[in-house]
Amino acid sequence: MPDDFKIPTLGESRYDSPVRISTFMPENDRFLFDISETSILKKIQSGEPMVTLERAGPREKIFFNPESTRAAIVTCGGLCPGINNVIRSITLELLMQYKILSVAGYRYGLKGIADSSIASVPLTPGSVSGISEKGGSILGSSRGPQKISGMIKRLVEDRIQILFIIGGDGSMRAAEFIYEELAKSKISIAIIAIPKTIDNDLNFISKSFGFQTACSKAVESIQCAHAESLGYENGIGIVKVMGRHSGAIAASATISSHEVNFCLIPEVPFVLQGRGGLFEALEKRLHERGHIVIVIAEGAAQDLIPHDGETDPSGNIKLADAGIWLREQIDAYFKKKKIQVTIKYIDPSYIIRSVPANPDDALFCTILGQYAVHAAMAGRTGMVIGQWNHFFAHLPIKAVIQERKTVNRNGSIWSSVIQATGQNIS
Amino acid sequence: MPDDFKIPTLGESRYDSPVRISTFMPENDRFLFDISETSILKKIQSGEPMVTLERAGPREKIFFNPESTRAAIVTCGGLCPGINNVIRSITLELLMQYKILSVAGYRYGLKGIADSSIASVPLTPGSVSGISEKGGSILGSSRGPQKISGMIKRLVEDRIQILFIIGGDGSMRAAEFIYEELAKSKISIAIIAIPKTIDNDLNFISKSFGFQTACSKAVESIQCAHAESLGYENGIGIVKVMGRHSGAIAASATISSHEVNFCLIPEVPFVLQGRGGLFEALEKRLHERGHIVIVIAEGAAQDLIPHDGETDPSGNIKLADAGIWLREQIDAYFKKKKIQVTIKYIDPSYIIRSVPANPDDALFCTILGQYAVHAAMAGRTGMVIGQWNHFFAHLPIKAVIQERKTVNRNGSIWSSVIQATGQNIS
Amino acid sequence: MPDDFKIPTLGESRYDSPVRISTFMPENDRFLFDISETSILKKIQSGEPMVTLERAGPREKIFFNPESTRAAIVTCGGLCPGINNVIRSITLELLMQYKILSVAGYRYGLKGIADSSIASVPLTPGSVSGISEKGGSILGSSRGPQKISGMIKRLVEDRIQILFIIGGDGSMRAAEFIYEELAKSKISIAIIAIPKTIDNDLNFISKSFGFQTACSKAVESIQCAHAESLGYENGIGIVKVMGRHSGAIAASATISSHEVNFCLIPEVPFVLQGRGGLFEALEKRLHERGHIVIVIAEGAAQDLIPHDGETDPSGNIKLADAGIWLREQIDAYFKKKKIQVTIKYIDPSYIIRSVPANPDDALFCTILGQYAVHAAMAGRTGMVIGQWNHFFAHLPIKAVIQERKTVNRNGSIWSSVIQATGQNIS
Amino acid sequence: MPDDFKIPTLGESRYDSPVRISTFMPENDRFLFDISETSILKKIQSGEPMVTLERAGPREKIFFNPESTRAAIVTCGGLCPGINNVIRSITLELLMQYKILSVAGYRYGLKGIADSSIASVPLTPGSVSGISEKGGSILGSSRGPQKISGMIKRLVEDRIQILFIIGGDGSMRAAEFIYEELAKSKISIAIIAIPKTIDNDLNFISKSFGFQTACSKAVESIQCAHAESLGYENGIGIVKVMGRHSGAIAASATISSHEVNFCLIPEVPFVLQGRGGLFEALEKRLHERGHIVIVIAEGAAQDLIPHDGETDPSGNIKLADAGIWLREQIDAYFKKKKIQVTIKYIDPSYIIRSVPANPDDALFCTILGQYAVHAAMAGRTGMVIGQWNHFFAHLPIKAVIQERKTVNRNGSIWSSVIQATGQNIS
Repeated sequence: MPDDFKIPTLGESRYDSPVRISTFMPENDRFLFDISETSILKKIQSGEPMVTLERAGPREKIFFNPESTRAAIVTCGGLCPGINNVIRSITLELLMQYKILSVAGYRYGLKGIADSSIASVPLTPGSVSGISEKGGSILGSSRGPQKISGMIKRLVEDRIQILFIIGGDGSMRAAEFIYEELAKSKISIAIIAIPKTIDNDLNFISKSFGFQTACSKAVESIQCAHAESLGYENGIGIVKVMGRHSGAIAASATISSHEVNFCLIPEVPFVLQGRGGLFEALEKRLHERGHIVIVIAEGAAQDLIPHDGETDPSGNIKLADAGIWLREQIDAYFKKKKIQVTIKYIDPSYIIRSVPANPDDALFCTILGQYAVHAAMAGRTGMVIGQWNHFFAHLPIKAVIQERKTVNRNGSIWSSVIQATGQNIS
Repeated sequence: MPDDFKIPTLGESRYDSPVRISTFMPENDRFLFDISETSILKKIQSGEPMVTLERAGPREKIFFNPESTRAAIVTCGGLCPGINNVIRSITLELLMQYKILSVAGYRYGLKGIADSSIASVPLTPGSVSGISEKGGSILGSSRGPQKISGMIKRLVEDRIQILFIIGGDGSMRAAEFIYEELAKSKISIAIIAIPKTIDNDLNFISKSFGFQTACSKAVESIQCAHAESLGYENGIGIVKVMGRHSGAIAASATISSHEVNFCLIPEVPFVLQGRGGLFEALEKRLHERGHIVIVIAEGAAQDLIPHDGETDPSGNIKLADAGIWLREQIDAYFKKKKIQVTIKYIDPSYIIRSVPANPDDALFCTILGQYAVHAAMAGRTGMVIGQWNHFFAHLPIKAVIQERKTVNRNGSIWSSVIQATGQNIS
Repeated sequence: MPDDFKIPTLGESRYDSPVRISTFMPENDRFLFDISETSILKKIQSGEPMVTLERAGPREKIFFNPESTRAAIVTCGGLCPGINNVIRSITLELLMQYKILSVAGYRYGLKGIADSSIASVPLTPGSVSGISEKGGSILGSSRGPQKISGMIKRLVEDRIQILFIIGGDGSMRAAEFIYEELAKSKISIAIIAIPKTIDNDLNFISKSFGFQTACSKAVESIQCAHAESLGYENGIGIVKVMGRHSGAIAASATISSHEVNFCLIPEVPFVLQGRGGLFEALEKRLHERGHIVIVIAEGAAQDLIPHDGETDPSGNIKLADAGIWLREQIDAYFKKKKIQVTIKYIDPSYIIRSVPANPDDALFCTILGQYAVHAAMAGRTGMVIGQWNHFFAHLPIKAVIQERKTVNRNGSIWSSVIQATGQNIS
Repeated sequence: MPDDFKIPTLGESRYDSPVRISTFMPENDRFLFDISETSILKKIQSGEPMVTLERAGPREKIFFNPESTRAAIVTCGGLCPGINNVIRSITLELLMQYKILSVAGYRYGLKGIADSSIASVPLTPGSVSGISEKGGSILGSSRGPQKISGMIKRLVEDRIQILFIIGGDGSMRAAEFIYEELAKSKISIAIIAIPKTIDNDLNFISKSFGFQTACSKAVESIQCAHAESLGYENGIGIVKVMGRHSGAIAASATISSHEVNFCLIPEVPFVLQGRGGLFEALEKRLHERGHIVIVIAEGAAQDLIPHDGETDPSGNIKLADAGIWLREQIDAYFKKKKIQVTIKYIDPSYIIRSVPANPDDALFCTILGQYAVHAAMAGRTGMVIGQWNHFFAHLPIKAVIQERKTVNRNGSIWSSVIQATGQNIS
């Protein structure tokens, strides 16, 4: 097993788990990462080690003594359906099953840890009751980096032994830094990350919470764009969906909705002009069918849009707004061609990310939170909880942040998009 | 009875209604427009005539001979939930109850009448089946005026005897011109308008179809803005809703949602700066509660926004975009004050107007369509079908277009808004 | 004005209203009950007085001194969408606008007043926050009569000056008894009823809260019944909806849904056997179209079903279950006829009445609660708050309970049902 | 590789796939069934072969010549969300991507194949447009066995080369018989089953279509039961959900909803009386919290309910109705104990299974249909298309029907149920 997928632990698990359950997960149960027969045979022949992942689940022996354990939760970055469900699940699992001492919630992201003037709030069964029915995060969030030393100081002062960080790419990097610094200083605080990315673009994470809810809401906007496109002669409906680096929402919503004619994502470049260009295809479609629905991920077409390399508070390069740009390009093209079109542009971003989790995401968030707690109580740290090959796994933060997951343009999802849209551009 | 509310008729009703019904509406049943005791007593004393409206409903004797009657439907202006329900109801009532010869649908608004190269589509029980579950208009729409003479020529050529115009303010004016021109030329074509205004701003029309559905969808966006505003320190969520001249959607959605702190509409001016200004109130609220939700109608604050008087194809003055403007003003104010805020701006316009009608609007559209047909078959023309004081009425187009209905700032709806938001600006 | 519609008052209004509003409702503003021109002329000729209703709204002078006023709310009978919205609106209006001393909620209906061992709960802005998003009643409910004297004793002991009773037919009768007893004993407690009837069957109340939400949910069940009926050869889907004495939900849901072939309600008797009977019509439809959707109100066909006259705790005669009975009758008929049919029976009752109010009902409940408070603070008592001819009115409880509103089989709603279903039975 | 998981083929794939795609699935790509490291090591040591499954996906060479290929689809058994989506996906994939000759739909299940007097319907892009928005099956369904020979005769007469059977356990057995009979007779008709089980109880099928939608709808009913239980003193809400042999829906809906106190499923027996019995636990909960929500799968408690072993047309043993039984038991218990309770019973079965697929199921059905077509065109037969370990796979029908998948009472889902409900019965 390559070292990369080993999960750090804080020490020996000496306490009996108080969780009332008939079957515990064996301490080091692992499962195969790559399960294709061809790959396995190749690795067996070459003697190369196979990657396995540690299975998540309740352990019989735990590291922390519940009676004296204080935990905290923080939520970072943009909103995403299901954050409150995860907060609720972690809180209830810690207090009702493990019966630990207390759970605190830091306000407004990492800033609320670093800035000790921002008081944390106690999380109790009462205070998390009913929060799952609400979108957003009851703790609030923020973007941008904070001083690692300041955060560690606060955690130590507050005598926190477990910190759950619900956040995306940037927060995972912060989590990794905190973990490494703690490890160097030999401070026994467990750092457990719960991956939050509405774009579903995290490495080794086959499904991120909120993604399905987001896709469902995107489908509603697509249906509106369809109605608008049919409502006028040469009607063109454009829906911009989230997805800075991954077209996962765009692709899924396109397949679910049946009404999209062009799906444009960061992973699959296209050209506007000439043979095989978007303009030619749009004109052909208007000629044949009289209306068009386009879904575009916000990070699409970045090679075509001139921009200046600004960055946001989290250090992400500021992408040009692909949706607005596309609307302008199409408008200009048809104006020049003297073809009268009616373009309706829909940008549902905040409506998609601020809604409550749907029941399937609610279930997923509940289990994710429970597994995060099991991992923490068993003394794991520097890790992310996630799902892979249908199992829940412990993943080293390092592995998750090393690169981004994207839509494979030769894979089955994109192939379904091509079949659903019939789009033929390059 | 003042002449203004007399409904023109094409002639004597000589045919028996084929509608299978036990009780018909008496030929000239009317009801009181102003039902306040004080007003009535005043009019009785002064001898001033009381305004009454003709009640809608199936008449026992009808003007048109069903066997030889051809009708047509056209949909104009912006989309609105329920258009397809009205099309369906009119079509089924004409074909199934009155058993007329045929119903045609003109495509893409008045343009599709004026331009004889655009073929109309036959409307049948089959072709309207299932259309109510879809947003938009199966006939398509367009904006802007067309030559009256060209439209009349087309109607005559197509041997249309009844034209149903589903449209807003602008289309009603066109309908009135067509009616007057037909009357002058003594051509017996009935012109029946079905008022479509998502803003609910038509005179003498207490409730327009689609309005409720629109408000329901606006509430969803407000809930998202609320989640966003709570999601960040000093979070400000702004939702822009439709309403060029009337804040009806803004006001209703505000009362329904419970989460709005400021509701800004065209009918109630406000100032930004100084005592009683919006900025002061926003700052106070952030200080006390840490988050704000604002709903603004698109036509609000026009006296504060500099603009150039452009007009759209329908001849409406192009309003400045109040939402974008407000976001910029607030952003600038807090930047200057060095107070860090996070503003999230939601513009759900097309998502609101392109959804299918909800069940209550579906019922309302069905009945509206049935009454429009009853009026037409009874030989009424130059009229609008609408609801007033809980009854369905025949209203002269002239009366409806003479001025716009607005939110009364001394009335009960605005009073409920003030109580719901607690807003205290002037 | 006939005495019947005069609203009792507790005494002179001497206090200035603290409500921050620009225009108050004139003290005795009234509006016409019957607004048909024909009726009015007839009454003018005969000298018969016209019925007018007192308009609801905030009065400039009020009876109760806010500083020392204690109010209470109780919810009775079956659940209905919007109860929590009304509780919330009354509470906020009393505390935030009128700034009265306190609001208490009695638990579990009238039983919770009569039984002084059941503690009431304080209602505050905090405790009513978010309750509108939940179905049911946060106070709980119960059925059946309680001793009037016991209830009055409790109210006096608790020093309650205003009691808001949210309830149906039975609770209104109780409210009237309490009011009369208080009047006799000259105790100045205002009794204000908020009519709750999911069946929309109260006299002089054109629209009851929750009714629209109920109809929307019923439509969902009808769509399922339609899918089921199409899913099998000779498929028959039956949906039973609420409506003991009124087919209002059945009729409205039928018109909204477009898929119902037979709508059976208490107001319109029918026969099963022979010419014009239901069986003949069902067989004909199966022969022609292969599937049937039937909607039946629970109180339909009571003349056809043998039953024993039992009563429920509220004293209502126990109706036979029309839905189950119909399923059995149809099943037996086709078995006898050796025609294979597949019957799917859907009884969505609790799913319909326990959901949260939709945005339109939310708005209606908010305003209803505000008007109830205005009436109470102005010293009105023995009255019901309701909507008639589009205005909100004060109605004497006596008038409301004297008879039940039903679907008029010669009216427009039933006529729309006939046209929507095409049903031809008698 | 054990023989059991080998997929039968009709012969050599000699035609080039016309599917416009960049990357085809290698002909015999397989993946591991059991991916736990411990199991793999054990098998390597013991020399026991590892089970692998054939991956689904488009093959570069196909068996059928599209130009002359006729396919048919049949839908069997109970309704389930998503059937129409699968019909649509198969039809479009066959006609638009593989451009085969024709697709027919047999009406009303296997009966519509066996009975040649029931005409099939042609399926075209036009006829499947918009069907995904509707629940049910546009082809209709039926239950019960049909003569294999009759069905094969019909298929041969109709010159069908591929038959897609969308159905559950019983239909799979029929599919296996048809396949075996065809193999014996050396008739080259591909038999491809698409597993339809709203209960998610098929072996080797980790997720069946419609299951998520069903769970979402079940959650709505649970929320209503919760409102009802809170609405009365000692309120008890009981929701019966589908699940004859598997409590999958009950368990998932319980975890998603957060409001369930007892979840009763077939896999986990319980007792009513005595220590650790349900009654004791109910009484305790009423005493402590005053209300209870119970979810019970229809097939639960069969060991406790006396019944007579009747069977339905498909040969399934008729289960006693666990929901009604439970209601009666609880009612009797508390009556005997003289504790007044209010029980509300909700049976949402048809409402759950007849709704349209939600967006996530829509996506899943689309891909499932596409993969079914790829398998068929590549000459596979006697197989089921399904998902396992996150991959789509070809599974021998035989393997799928050999036993039923159930909720593992020692597994993570049931463990989450226990933690979510806190239930402590045995």
